[in-house]
Amino acid sequence: MRVANQTRNNREIERKFLLKQPPDQLKRSRHYVIEQGYLATEPAGRQVRLRKKGKTASLTFKVGRGAHREEREIKLSAKQFAALWPGTAGRRLRKTRYEIPWRGLLIEIDLYRGKNAGLVVAEVEFPNLAMCRKFKPPSWFGREVTGEKRYSNVRLANE
Amino acid sequence: MRVANQTRNNREIERKFLLKQPPDQLKRSRHYVIEQGYLATEPAGRQVRLRKKGKTASLTFKVGRGAHREEREIKLSAKQFAALWPGTAGRRLRKTRYEIPWRGLLIEIDLYRGKNAGLVVAEVEFPNLAMCRKFKPPSWFGREVTGEKRYSNVRLANE
Repeated sequence: MRVANQTRNNREIERKFLLKQPPDQLKRSRHYVIEQGYLATEPAGRQVRLRKKGKTASLTFKVGRGAHREEREIKLSAKQFAALWPGTAGRRLRKTRYEIPWRGLLIEIDLYRGKNAGLVVAEVEFPNLAMCRKFKPPSWFGREVTGEKRYSNVRLANE
Repeated sequence: MRVANQTRNNREIERKFLLKQPPDQLKRSRHYVIEQGYLATEPAGRQVRLRKKGKTASLTFKVGRGAHREEREIKLSAKQFAALWPGTAGRRLRKTRYEIPWRGLLIEIDLYRGKNAGLVVAEVEFPNLAMCRKFKPPSWFGREVTGEKRYSNVRLANE
């Protein structure tokens, strides 16, 4: 998903919302468990994240905050992941991600586990800024929290 | 070198010194150019570094400061390195490293290039804390700067 929705200069364009209620089709949707942790994070939003999604491991560098961020991602071998993962101790989170196709876009719904259980967040990525601005959230979306530190994964991993 | 001198829990034990004068054998010693940059750094010393040493690329996670740090390193493919390297823009440094065997230890002498040209630093890694404490610097070593932020590579890459 990330690669397809990235512009050529590795920018990702996305918005984040709380959920009033999960949509009807949630349990029938494609979903998987994500485990992620942070090797290092800076206050301005610069971060290095490790993630395991099923058997696929990756390392992602992000910089910037809000709807418009630079993102660089590489796949890691199981051995590379295992060597780095202990460095994320105390800075990890788990969530189940549901993928919901919606009017030519993809809505990703994250149900957080563990210490953040109960929190449900929806993210939408856009191929360009025009579509990002024009987006009309479905009725089951709640308040927009794009760029709010409180709902950043870095923060949720630490608290 | 790193791997050989690391204890089982990925701790590195090292001391850093300024140099009064480069030793006589410097120019005859094994040496190579190192280019490195930082994806993210935290004030307490936590960092993710990319490094290219000849054709070998690596990603290193470090945490802690001073003579005793945790370090985790993986080799990167050329493709993985190329994908991440742009993220270090404005946070890079170049140096030539000379390797000098000395009384069963290895002294690494770094001659910095570019904006840090003129700075020469020696690093010694130890297999254990006892040898670290007992170490008597050779006469051509200057002041010890172990743990001094001013001489950290992170700081030198930013200034």
